[in-house]
Amino acid sequence: MDIGIIGSGTVARTLAAKLLELGHSVMISSRDTSLAKDLGRRGTLPSADDFAAAQRELGREAAAGSFADAAVHGEVVINATAGGHSLEALEAAGAANLAGKILVDLANALDFSGGMPPTLLFCNTDSLAERIQAAFPEARVVKTLNTANAVVMVDPARLGEPTTMFVAGDDREAKEWVRTELLESWFGWRQVLDVGDITAARGLEMWMPLWLRLMGATGTPWFNLRIVTAS
Amino acid sequence: MDIGIIGSGTVARTLAAKLLELGHSVMISSRDTSLAKDLGRRGTLPSADDFAAAQRELGREAAAGSFADAAVHGEVVINATAGGHSLEALEAAGAANLAGKILVDLANALDFSGGMPPTLLFCNTDSLAERIQAAFPEARVVKTLNTANAVVMVDPARLGEPTTMFVAGDDREAKEWVRTELLESWFGWRQVLDVGDITAARGLEMWMPLWLRLMGATGTPWFNLRIVTAS
Repeated sequence: MDIGIIGSGTVARTLAAKLLELGHSVMISSRDTSLAKDLGRRGTLPSADDFAAAQRELGREAAAGSFADAAVHGEVVINATAGGHSLEALEAAGAANLAGKILVDLANALDFSGGMPPTLLFCNTDSLAERIQAAFPEARVVKTLNTANAVVMVDPARLGEPTTMFVAGDDREAKEWVRTELLESWFGWRQVLDVGDITAARGLEMWMPLWLRLMGATGTPWFNLRIVTAS
Repeated sequence: MDIGIIGSGTVARTLAAKLLELGHSVMISSRDTSLAKDLGRRGTLPSADDFAAAQRELGREAAAGSFADAAVHGEVVINATAGGHSLEALEAAGAANLAGKILVDLANALDFSGGMPPTLLFCNTDSLAERIQAAFPEARVVKTLNTANAVVMVDPARLGEPTTMFVAGDDREAKEWVRTELLESWFGWRQVLDVGDITAARGLEMWMPLWLRLMGATGTPWFNLRIVTAS
């Protein structure tokens, strides 16, 4: 499938590497196109050139471009920008290029202006996902994956036991595709809970302050939560 | 041990019943003392009369009283009021009666004025626990247990597998007592994570919006999260 990723940072590339491995045609993107194309290898993450080379081998051309290029490229579009810049990036991607498409929003809108730990730019009575859905009413926004580190997002089996992922959004079919295809079939999630409409993204985004504390308490970003119910 | 519980609702009585079963001398409390004393049996929860009878059998007298009575009674004090009324209730309990004591805060400050689901009265850059610690600087406030239903709080083994409880607070010794005695030894928690100082209570309180959605998704209030790390 053709996947457009809005963003070119660590999360965007981790997703792109996994999606490429699964045989999809992926385009990452940046505000400054030359920046996206020039992105060097970071740690174990492939560079844009690596993506391009790997995709050429698969007979595919897309690799890195502008936000609008990625939105045009994608049958499904993933918002993997820093949450504080997501609305601006999606505006550049273009409402017309997102219309009718599933828009997977995995961003967290963190405010670092007050120092560490960051606070949330939107919360309690609002959320980034709601703002995105309101700004792009023809996109089919699904909030998911923002509750885990990028490595865990695409490889939940890395954790010792199955953990839980969430989906929230107003479009039932979009949520079902995200659950069964993207999360379960592609990434290997085993417990996916639908927590409700797009306003449920508030709860998912409000997990981040505890997530940050847990990274400190456990000493690793590679953790997740598992929901356990009384049997 | 003598335990004072600020509050007389479902959470207060569930805790009181468990603490009584463990052989402690417990006093629940209410703004209107006669109300606390007159509280009838609710479901499986004992009434104030049941408490009084059970405690008389143990040779103990305390059962129900005013907020100040409970604070005086307790070597440890537990805030089990509705979070929107906690500061007022603790004010009535009296700063002098709380000074030097461990004050376990398990309240969630929910705002129902906008309908369901409720929002939080304090969040992101503030929390109820921080407000309590600031208002009662001589109390040793530990935030814990607010992340689970009352039944799960006192009987985590009811869930199919071990799950995680958190502690946050500025007083290391107080947190250590809460972790090893109240949570592990008395209630049977097996994975207790210290998430940091009192400001970490923000993350714990901000779990509530997702908790409410999860109650809807799982169909039960008897659930909890387990933190799983990469091994």
